[in-house]
Amino acid sequence: MIQEHTPQANFDKLGLILPPAPKPMGVYRPLLIVDNRWVYVSGHGPVMKDGSLIEGRIGKNLDEAAGKIAAQQVGLAILATLHENLGSLNRIKRVVKVLGMVNCNEDFLNHPFILNGCSELFAKVWGDENGIGVRSAVGMGSLPGNIPVEIEAMFELEVV
Amino acid sequence: MIQEHTPQANFDKLGLILPPAPKPMGVYRPLLIVDNRWVYVSGHGPVMKDGSLIEGRIGKNLDEAAGKIAAQQVGLAILATLHENLGSLNRIKRVVKVLGMVNCNEDFLNHPFILNGCSELFAKVWGDENGIGVRSAVGMGSLPGNIPVEIEAMFELEVV
Amino acid sequence: MIQEHTPQANFDKLGLILPPAPKPMGVYRPLLIVDNRWVYVSGHGPVMKDGSLIEGRIGKNLDEAAGKIAAQQVGLAILATLHENLGSLNRIKRVVKVLGMVNCNEDFLNHPFILNGCSELFAKVWGDENGIGVRSAVGMGSLPGNIPVEIEAMFELEVV
Repeated sequence: MIQEHTPQANFDKLGLILPPAPKPMGVYRPLLIVDNRWVYVSGHGPVMKDGSLIEGRIGKNLDEAAGKIAAQQVGLAILATLHENLGSLNRIKRVVKVLGMVNCNEDFLNHPFILNGCSELFAKVWGDENGIGVRSAVGMGSLPGNIPVEIEAMFELEVV
Repeated sequence: MIQEHTPQANFDKLGLILPPAPKPMGVYRPLLIVDNRWVYVSGHGPVMKDGSLIEGRIGKNLDEAAGKIAAQQVGLAILATLHENLGSLNRIKRVVKVLGMVNCNEDFLNHPFILNGCSELFAKVWGDENGIGVRSAVGMGSLPGNIPVEIEAMFELEVV
Repeated sequence: MIQEHTPQANFDKLGLILPPAPKPMGVYRPLLIVDNRWVYVSGHGPVMKDGSLIEGRIGKNLDEAAGKIAAQQVGLAILATLHENLGSLNRIKRVVKVLGMVNCNEDFLNHPFILNGCSELFAKVWGDENGIGVRSAVGMGSLPGNIPVEIEAMFELEVV
Protein backbone atom coordinates (compact mmCIF):
# COMPACT_ATOMS: atom_id res chain seq x y z
CA MET A 1 0.00 0.00 0.00
CA ILE A 2 1.33 3.40 -0.92
CA GLN A 3 0.86 5.97 1.81
CA GLU A 4 0.17 9.16 -0.03
CA HIS A 5 -0.21 11.53 2.86
CA THR A 6 2.79 10.73 4.99
CA PRO A 7 4.75 13.72 6.30
CA GLN A 8 7.60 12.88 3.94
CA ALA A 9 5.25 12.71 0.94
CA ASN A 10 3.58 15.93 2.05
CA PHE A 11 6.94 17.63 2.13
CA ASP A 12 8.04 16.22 -1.22
CA LYS A 13 4.90 17.62 -2.84
CA LEU A 14 5.75 21.15 -1.72
CA GLY A 15 8.60 21.41 -4.20
CA LEU A 16 10.89 22.92 -1.56
CA ILE A 17 14.55 22.00 -1.24
CA LEU A 18 16.13 21.15 2.09
CA PRO A 19 19.33 23.02 2.86
CA PRO A 20 22.26 21.01 4.20
CA ALA A 21 21.67 20.04 7.82
CA PRO A 22 23.66 22.63 9.78
CA LYS A 23 26.74 21.58 11.73
CA PRO A 24 26.89 22.77 15.36
CA MET A 25 28.48 26.20 15.79
CA GLY A 26 29.57 25.31 19.32
CA VAL A 27 29.48 22.59 21.95
CA TYR A 28 26.01 21.17 21.39
CA ARG A 29 24.30 18.64 19.18
CA PRO A 30 21.61 19.68 16.70
CA LEU A 31 19.15 17.01 17.88
CA LEU A 32 18.70 14.73 20.86
CA ILE A 33 16.18 11.95 21.40
CA VAL A 34 15.27 11.12 24.99
CA ASP A 35 13.14 8.28 26.32
CA ASN A 36 12.88 7.01 22.72
CA ARG A 37 10.02 9.44 22.39
CA TRP A 38 10.91 13.13 22.59
CA VAL A 39 13.03 14.86 19.99
CA TYR A 40 14.67 18.07 21.16
CA VAL A 41 16.11 20.30 18.42
CA SER A 42 18.68 23.03 19.08
CA GLY A 43 18.17 26.60 18.03
CA HIS A 44 18.42 26.72 14.23
CA GLY A 45 19.04 29.65 11.90
CA PRO A 46 17.91 30.34 8.32
CA VAL A 47 20.30 28.07 6.40
CA MET A 48 20.25 28.53 2.60
CA LYS A 49 20.79 25.86 -0.01
CA ASP A 50 24.48 26.74 -0.23
CA GLY A 51 24.87 26.41 3.53
CA SER A 52 25.16 30.15 4.17
CA LEU A 53 22.88 31.96 6.62
CA ILE A 54 20.43 34.78 5.93
CA GLU A 55 21.53 37.83 7.90
CA GLY A 56 19.73 40.98 8.99
CA ARG A 57 17.54 42.60 11.62
CA ILE A 58 13.82 43.03 10.95
CA GLY A 59 12.77 46.66 10.93
CA LYS A 60 16.36 47.74 10.32
CA ASN A 61 17.50 46.09 7.08
CA LEU A 62 14.89 43.35 6.52
CA ASP A 63 11.14 43.84 6.12
CA GLU A 64 8.38 41.62 7.49
CA ALA A 65 8.00 39.64 4.28
CA ALA A 66 11.71 38.85 4.22
CA GLY A 67 11.49 37.91 7.90
CA LYS A 68 8.70 35.42 7.24
CA ILE A 69 10.72 33.86 4.41
CA ALA A 70 13.68 33.62 6.78
CA ALA A 71 11.49 31.84 9.35
CA GLN A 72 10.44 29.36 6.66
CA GLN A 73 14.10 28.79 5.89
CA VAL A 74 14.71 28.09 9.59
CA GLY A 75 11.88 25.57 9.38
CA LEU A 76 13.58 23.93 6.39
CA ALA A 77 16.87 23.79 8.31
CA ILE A 78 15.06 22.02 11.17
CA LEU A 79 13.51 19.58 8.71
CA ALA A 80 17.00 18.96 7.29
CA THR A 81 18.29 18.13 10.77
CA LEU A 82 15.33 15.81 11.40
CA HIS A 83 15.82 14.11 8.04
CA GLU A 84 19.57 13.65 8.47
CA ASN A 85 19.26 12.22 11.98
CA LEU A 86 16.07 10.18 11.60
CA GLY A 87 16.21 9.17 7.93
CA SER A 88 12.66 10.34 7.18
CA LEU A 89 10.20 12.98 8.33
CA ASN A 90 7.78 10.09 8.85
CA ARG A 91 9.59 9.26 12.08
CA ILE A 92 8.01 12.36 13.65
CA LYS A 93 4.47 11.99 14.92
CA ARG A 94 3.83 15.57 15.89
CA VAL A 95 5.14 19.05 16.62
CA VAL A 96 5.00 19.68 20.37
CA LYS A 97 6.60 23.06 20.91
CA VAL A 98 8.29 25.88 19.03
CA LEU A 99 10.20 28.80 20.53
CA GLY A 100 10.56 31.45 17.85
CA MET A 101 13.08 34.21 18.47
CA VAL A 102 13.11 37.24 16.19
CA ASN A 103 16.02 39.66 15.78
CA CYS A 104 14.20 42.96 15.32
CA ASN A 105 13.97 46.58 16.32
CA GLU A 106 12.57 47.51 19.71
CA ASP A 107 9.37 48.88 18.15
CA PHE A 108 8.60 45.77 16.10
CA LEU A 109 5.11 44.42 16.79
CA ASN A 110 4.41 41.51 14.49
CA HIS A 111 6.50 38.57 15.70
CA PRO A 112 3.68 36.02 15.19
CA PHE A 113 3.50 36.91 11.48
CA ILE A 114 7.24 36.22 11.11
CA LEU A 115 7.05 32.87 12.90
CA ASN A 116 4.17 31.69 10.74
CA GLY A 117 6.79 31.20 8.01
CA CYS A 118 8.00 28.19 9.97
CA SER A 119 4.69 27.12 11.49
CA GLU A 120 2.83 27.05 8.16
CA LEU A 121 5.56 24.80 6.76
CA PHE A 122 5.26 22.37 9.67
CA ALA A 123 1.45 22.39 9.32
CA LYS A 124 1.78 21.43 5.65
CA VAL A 125 4.16 18.57 6.46
CA TRP A 126 2.34 17.02 9.44
CA GLY A 127 -1.16 18.43 8.88
CA ASP A 128 -3.19 20.81 11.03
CA GLU A 129 -3.70 18.35 13.87
CA ASN A 130 -0.14 17.07 14.31
CA GLY A 131 1.81 19.86 12.67
CA ILE A 132 0.64 22.67 14.94
CA GLY A 133 1.91 22.71 18.53
CA VAL A 134 2.35 25.36 21.16
CA ARG A 135 4.55 28.35 20.35
CA SER A 136 6.06 31.49 21.77
CA ALA A 137 7.12 34.32 19.46
CA VAL A 138 9.40 36.93 20.97
CA GLY A 139 11.89 39.67 20.05
CA MET A 140 15.55 39.33 20.95
CA GLY A 141 18.23 41.92 21.57
CA SER A 142 20.50 40.11 19.12
CA LEU A 143 21.09 36.71 17.53
CA PRO A 144 24.29 34.85 16.58
CA GLY A 145 25.82 36.10 13.33
CA ASN A 146 22.99 38.65 13.08
CA ILE A 147 20.54 36.05 11.76
CA PRO A 148 16.96 37.41 11.69
CA VAL A 149 15.28 34.35 13.25
CA GLU A 150 16.33 31.49 15.51
CA ILE A 151 13.93 28.67 16.35
CA GLU A 152 14.22 25.76 18.75
CA ALA A 153 11.64 22.99 18.73
CA MET A 154 10.46 19.79 20.34
CA PHE A 155 8.76 16.94 18.54
CA GLU A 156 7.21 13.61 19.47
CA LEU A 157 8.52 10.49 17.74
CA GLU A 158 6.19 8.08 16.01
CA VAL A 159 5.96 4.89 18.06
CA VAL A 160 7.18 2.11 15.81
CA MET B 1 -16.99 15.15 50.93
CA ILE B 2 -16.47 18.73 49.92
CA GLN B 3 -12.91 19.47 48.91
CA GLU B 4 -12.30 22.93 50.18
CA HIS B 5 -8.72 23.38 49.12
CA THR B 6 -8.78 22.27 45.53
CA PRO B 7 -6.96 24.53 43.04
CA GLN B 8 -10.29 25.61 41.58
CA ALA B 9 -11.67 26.47 45.04
CA ASN B 10 -8.45 28.28 45.88
CA PHE B 11 -8.81 30.36 42.76
CA ASP B 12 -12.47 31.08 43.32
CA LYS B 13 -11.69 32.42 46.80
CA LEU B 14 -9.27 34.99 45.34
CA GLY B 15 -12.11 37.03 43.87
CA LEU B 16 -10.24 37.46 40.60
CA ILE B 17 -11.96 37.27 37.24
CA LEU B 18 -10.58 35.22 34.37
CA PRO B 19 -10.25 37.07 31.09
CA PRO B 20 -11.51 35.32 27.97
CA ALA B 21 -9.11 32.55 26.93
CA PRO B 22 -7.04 34.16 24.16
CA LYS B 23 -7.37 32.95 20.59
CA PRO B 24 -4.11 32.13 18.79
CA MET B 25 -2.54 35.13 17.02
CA GLY B 26 -0.85 32.83 14.51
CA VAL B 27 -0.33 29.21 13.54
CA TYR B 28 -0.14 27.57 16.96
CA ARG B 29 -2.47 26.21 19.59
CA PRO B 30 -2.70 27.75 23.07
CA LEU B 31 -2.29 24.43 24.86
CA LEU B 32 -1.13 20.92 24.04
CA ILE B 33 -1.24 17.79 26.20
CA VAL B 34 1.33 15.10 25.45
CA ASP B 35 1.61 11.62 26.90
CA ASN B 36 -1.63 12.31 28.79
CA ARG B 37 0.57 13.94 31.39
CA TRP B 38 2.37 17.11 30.32
CA VAL B 39 0.54 20.31 29.50
CA TYR B 40 2.49 22.74 27.35
CA VAL B 41 1.11 26.28 27.18
CA SER B 42 2.04 28.77 24.47
CA GLY B 43 3.42 32.21 25.21
CA HIS B 44 0.56 34.26 26.67
CA GLY B 45 0.16 38.02 27.02
CA PRO B 46 -1.68 40.16 29.59
CA VAL B 47 -5.27 39.72 28.42
CA MET B 48 -7.80 42.00 30.12
CA LYS B 49 -11.41 41.17 30.92
CA ASP B 50 -12.57 42.80 27.68
CA GLY B 51 -10.10 40.72 25.68
CA SER B 52 -7.72 43.59 24.98
CA LEU B 53 -4.02 43.41 25.82
CA ILE B 54 -2.04 45.61 28.20
CA GLU B 55 0.65 47.41 26.20
CA GLY B 56 3.87 49.14 27.19
CA ARG B 57 7.55 48.72 27.91
CA ILE B 58 8.76 48.63 31.50
CA GLY B 59 11.12 51.49 32.30
CA LYS B 60 9.84 53.44 29.31
CA ASN B 61 6.10 53.91 29.80
CA LEU B 62 5.23 51.37 32.51
CA ASP B 63 6.69 51.20 36.02
CA GLU B 64 7.58 48.09 37.98
CA ALA B 65 4.28 47.95 39.85
CA ALA B 66 2.35 48.08 36.57
CA GLY B 67 4.65 45.41 35.18
CA LYS B 68 3.91 43.07 38.08
CA ILE B 69 0.19 43.59 37.60
CA ALA B 70 0.63 42.82 33.91
CA ALA B 71 2.43 39.59 34.81
CA GLN B 72 -0.48 38.62 37.07
CA GLN B 73 -2.81 39.30 34.16
CA VAL B 74 -0.68 36.97 31.99
CA GLY B 75 -1.08 34.38 34.74
CA LEU B 76 -4.85 34.86 34.62
CA ALA B 77 -4.81 34.45 30.83
CA ILE B 78 -2.93 31.17 31.25
CA LEU B 79 -5.46 30.03 33.86
CA ALA B 80 -8.23 30.94 31.39
CA THR B 81 -6.61 28.76 28.73
CA LEU B 82 -6.23 25.89 31.20
CA HIS B 83 -9.84 26.26 32.34
CA GLU B 84 -11.24 26.42 28.83
CA ASN B 85 -9.30 23.41 27.61
CA LEU B 86 -9.43 21.22 30.73
CA GLY B 87 -12.75 22.24 32.29
CA SER B 88 -11.26 22.88 35.72
CA LEU B 89 -8.01 24.00 37.30
CA ASN B 90 -8.24 20.82 39.38
CA ARG B 91 -7.00 18.87 36.37
CA ILE B 92 -3.53 20.36 36.91
CA LYS B 93 -1.38 18.68 39.54
CA ARG B 94 1.52 21.06 39.52
CA VAL B 95 3.44 23.88 37.86
CA VAL B 96 6.62 22.50 36.29
CA LYS B 97 8.21 25.39 34.44
CA VAL B 98 7.67 29.05 33.65
CA LEU B 99 9.60 31.14 31.14
CA GLY B 100 8.91 34.79 31.87
CA MET B 101 9.86 37.32 29.23
CA VAL B 102 9.78 41.00 30.08
CA ASN B 103 9.65 43.86 27.56
CA CYS B 104 11.81 46.47 29.25
CA ASN B 105 14.60 48.97 28.84
CA GLU B 106 18.17 47.74 28.54
CA ASP B 107 19.04 49.01 32.04
CA PHE B 108 16.13 47.27 33.77
CA LEU B 109 17.29 45.07 36.66
CA ASN B 110 14.29 43.63 38.42
CA HIS B 111 12.76 40.99 36.15
CA PRO B 112 12.13 38.54 39.02
CA PHE B 113 9.91 41.11 40.80
CA ILE B 114 7.80 41.49 37.65
CA LEU B 115 7.39 37.74 37.17
CA ASN B 116 6.30 37.23 40.75
CA GLY B 117 2.98 38.74 39.65
CA CYS B 118 2.31 35.48 37.82
CA SER B 119 4.17 33.13 40.16
CA GLU B 120 2.40 34.36 43.31
CA LEU B 121 -0.93 33.75 41.59
CA PHE B 122 0.03 30.19 40.68
CA ALA B 123 1.28 29.60 44.25
CA LYS B 124 -2.10 30.70 45.63
CA VAL B 125 -3.98 28.38 43.26
CA TRP B 126 -1.88 25.22 43.66
CA GLY B 127 -0.14 25.94 46.96
CA ASP B 128 3.54 26.46 47.71
CA GLU B 129 4.49 22.86 47.02
CA ASN B 130 2.75 22.29 43.70
CA GLY B 131 2.26 25.86 42.55
CA ILE B 132 5.93 26.84 42.46
CA GLY B 133 8.10 25.33 39.74
CA VAL B 134 11.31 26.32 38.04
CA ARG B 135 11.47 29.68 36.29
CA SER B 136 13.62 31.92 34.17
CA ALA B 137 13.01 35.67 34.12
CA VAL B 138 14.64 37.58 31.29
CA GLY B 139 14.45 40.84 29.35
CA MET B 140 13.50 40.88 25.68
CA GLY B 141 14.30 43.29 22.90
CA SER B 142 10.60 43.48 22.03
CA LEU B 143 7.35 41.53 22.37
CA PRO B 144 4.36 41.12 20.02
CA GLY B 145 2.04 44.12 20.03
CA ASN B 146 4.34 45.80 22.55
CA ILE B 147 2.93 43.78 25.46
CA PRO B 148 5.03 44.20 28.64
CA VAL B 149 5.19 40.51 29.57
CA GLU B 150 4.91 37.18 27.76
CA ILE B 151 4.96 33.91 29.67
CA GLU B 152 5.05 30.32 28.48
CA ALA B 153 4.56 27.47 30.92
CA MET B 154 4.48 23.73 31.41
CA PHE B 155 2.27 21.89 33.87
CA GLU B 156 1.77 18.31 34.99
CA LEU B 157 -1.72 16.82 34.74
CA GLU B 158 -3.38 15.20 37.72
CA VAL B 159 -3.51 11.45 37.14
CA VAL B 160 -7.17 10.50 37.18
CA MET C 1 35.48 -1.18 42.64
CA ILE C 2 36.45 2.46 42.45
CA GLN C 3 34.74 4.26 39.62
CA GLU C 4 37.33 6.66 38.36
CA HIS C 5 35.35 8.30 35.62
CA THR C 6 32.10 9.16 37.32
CA PRO C 7 30.78 12.67 36.71
CA GLN C 8 31.59 13.62 40.29
CA ALA C 9 35.17 12.32 39.95
CA ASN C 10 35.50 14.09 36.61
CA PHE C 11 34.46 17.33 38.21
CA ASP C 12 36.72 16.89 41.22
CA LYS C 13 39.70 16.42 38.90
CA LEU C 14 39.08 19.81 37.27
CA GLY C 15 40.21 21.68 40.35
CA LEU C 16 37.29 24.07 40.13
CA ILE C 17 35.36 25.26 43.17
CA LEU C 18 31.58 25.26 43.29
CA PRO C 19 30.00 28.53 44.38
CA PRO C 20 27.23 28.36 46.97
CA ALA C 21 24.01 27.07 45.40
CA PRO C 22 22.03 30.24 44.71
CA LYS C 23 18.83 30.95 46.66
CA PRO C 24 15.77 31.85 44.56
CA MET C 25 15.47 35.57 43.81
CA GLY C 26 11.70 35.26 43.53
CA VAL C 27 8.81 32.82 43.64
CA TYR C 28 10.38 29.76 42.03
CA ARG C 29 12.52 26.82 43.02
CA PRO C 30 16.03 26.33 41.59
CA LEU C 31 15.39 22.72 40.60
CA LEU C 32 12.43 20.43 40.09
CA ILE C 33 12.37 16.70 39.38
CA VAL C 34 9.35 15.35 37.53
CA ASP C 35 8.43 11.75 36.80
CA ASN C 36 11.47 10.70 38.86
CA ARG C 37 13.40 11.21 35.64
CA TRP C 38 13.62 14.78 34.36
CA VAL C 39 15.48 17.50 36.21
CA TYR C 40 14.45 21.02 35.29
CA VAL C 41 16.78 23.79 36.44
CA SER C 42 15.74 27.45 36.69
CA GLY C 43 17.62 30.24 34.97
CA HIS C 44 20.93 30.63 36.79
CA GLY C 45 23.38 33.53 36.81
CA PRO C 46 27.18 33.67 37.23
CA VAL C 47 27.49 33.13 40.98
CA MET C 48 31.00 33.66 42.38
CA LYS C 49 32.57 31.81 45.29
CA ASP C 50 31.50 34.57 47.70
CA GLY C 51 27.91 34.34 46.48
CA SER C 52 28.00 37.61 44.53
CA LEU C 53 27.06 37.79 40.85
CA ILE C 54 29.23 38.86 37.93
CA GLU C 55 27.66 41.92 36.32
CA GLY C 56 28.06 43.55 32.92
CA ARG C 57 26.91 43.61 29.33
CA ILE C 58 29.05 41.98 26.66
CA GLY C 59 30.26 44.47 24.06
CA LYS C 60 29.61 47.34 26.45
CA ASN C 61 31.71 46.71 29.56
CA LEU C 62 32.68 43.03 29.25
CA ASP C 63 34.61 41.43 26.39
CA GLU C 64 34.03 38.01 24.86
CA ALA C 65 36.65 36.29 26.99
CA ALA C 66 35.05 37.64 30.17
CA GLY C 67 31.66 36.56 28.85
CA LYS C 68 32.84 32.99 28.31
CA ILE C 69 34.24 32.89 31.84
CA ALA C 70 30.91 34.20 33.13
CA ALA C 71 29.11 31.40 31.26
CA GLN C 72 31.42 28.86 32.91
CA GLN C 73 30.55 30.41 36.25
CA VAL C 74 26.85 29.98 35.41
CA GLY C 75 27.62 26.35 34.67
CA LEU C 76 29.30 26.02 38.08
CA ALA C 77 26.26 27.59 39.74
CA ILE C 78 24.04 25.01 38.02
CA LEU C 79 26.35 22.23 39.19
CA ALA C 80 26.12 23.66 42.72
CA THR C 81 22.32 23.51 42.54
CA LEU C 82 22.45 19.93 41.24
CA HIS C 83 24.91 18.91 43.96
CA GLU C 84 22.96 20.54 46.76
CA ASN C 85 19.65 19.01 45.70
CA LEU C 86 20.82 15.59 44.53
CA GLY C 87 23.84 14.97 46.76
CA SER C 88 26.16 14.08 43.87
CA LEU C 89 26.65 14.92 40.21
CA ASN C 90 26.55 11.14 39.63
CA ARG C 91 22.78 11.29 39.95
CA ILE C 92 22.62 12.98 36.55
CA LYS C 93 22.79 10.70 33.53
CA ARG C 94 22.92 13.31 30.84
CA VAL C 95 22.47 16.90 29.73
CA VAL C 96 19.30 17.19 27.65
CA LYS C 97 18.86 20.87 26.91
CA VAL C 98 20.48 24.23 27.57
CA LEU C 99 18.97 27.64 26.85
CA GLY C 100 21.77 30.19 26.98
CA MET C 101 20.81 33.84 27.18
CA VAL C 102 23.45 36.50 26.71
CA ASN C 103 23.18 40.12 27.84
CA CYS C 104 25.00 41.93 25.03
CA ASN C 105 24.94 44.80 22.60
CA GLU C 106 22.65 44.67 19.59
CA ASP C 107 25.58 44.16 17.22
CA PHE C 108 27.08 41.21 19.12
CA LEU C 109 27.57 38.16 16.91
CA ASN C 110 29.31 35.44 18.86
CA HIS C 111 26.79 34.06 21.37
CA PRO C 112 27.84 30.42 20.77
CA PHE C 113 31.41 31.23 21.84
CA ILE C 114 30.12 32.68 25.12
CA LEU C 115 27.90 29.70 25.87
CA ASN C 116 30.72 27.25 25.27
CA GLY C 117 32.03 28.37 28.66
CA CYS C 118 29.18 26.41 30.22
CA SER C 119 28.91 23.65 27.63
CA GLU C 120 32.60 22.74 27.75
CA LEU C 121 32.32 22.40 31.53
CA PHE C 122 29.33 20.06 31.24
CA ALA C 123 31.17 18.03 28.57
CA LYS C 124 34.11 17.56 30.92
CA VAL C 125 31.85 16.42 33.75
CA TRP C 126 29.60 14.00 31.85
CA GLY C 127 31.74 13.32 28.80
CA ASP C 128 31.13 14.12 25.14
CA GLU C 129 28.28 11.65 24.76
CA ASN C 130 26.20 12.48 27.84
CA GLY C 131 27.50 15.95 28.61
CA ILE C 132 26.49 17.57 25.32
CA GLY C 133 22.81 18.13 24.67
CA VAL C 134 20.81 20.48 22.49
CA ARG C 135 21.28 24.22 22.97
CA SER C 136 20.07 27.61 21.89
CA ALA C 137 22.31 30.65 22.28
CA VAL C 138 20.59 34.02 21.99
CA GLY C 139 20.99 37.69 22.87
CA MET C 140 18.65 39.35 25.35
CA GLY C 141 17.58 42.95 25.76
CA SER C 142 18.51 42.78 29.45
CA LEU C 143 18.99 40.31 32.30
CA PRO C 144 18.20 40.53 36.03
CA GLY C 145 20.75 42.55 37.97
CA ASN C 146 22.63 43.18 34.71
CA ILE C 147 24.25 39.72 34.78
CA PRO C 148 26.00 38.93 31.47
CA VAL C 149 24.63 35.38 31.06
CA GLU C 150 21.61 33.44 32.27
CA ILE C 151 21.22 29.75 31.53
CA GLU C 152 18.35 27.35 32.15
CA ALA C 153 18.81 23.63 31.63
CA MET C 154 17.18 20.24 31.65
CA PHE C 155 18.89 17.00 32.64
CA GLU C 156 17.99 13.32 32.75
CA LEU C 157 18.37 11.49 36.06
CA GLU C 158 20.36 8.29 36.29
CA VAL C 159 17.96 5.39 36.83
CA VAL C 160 18.91 3.83 40.15
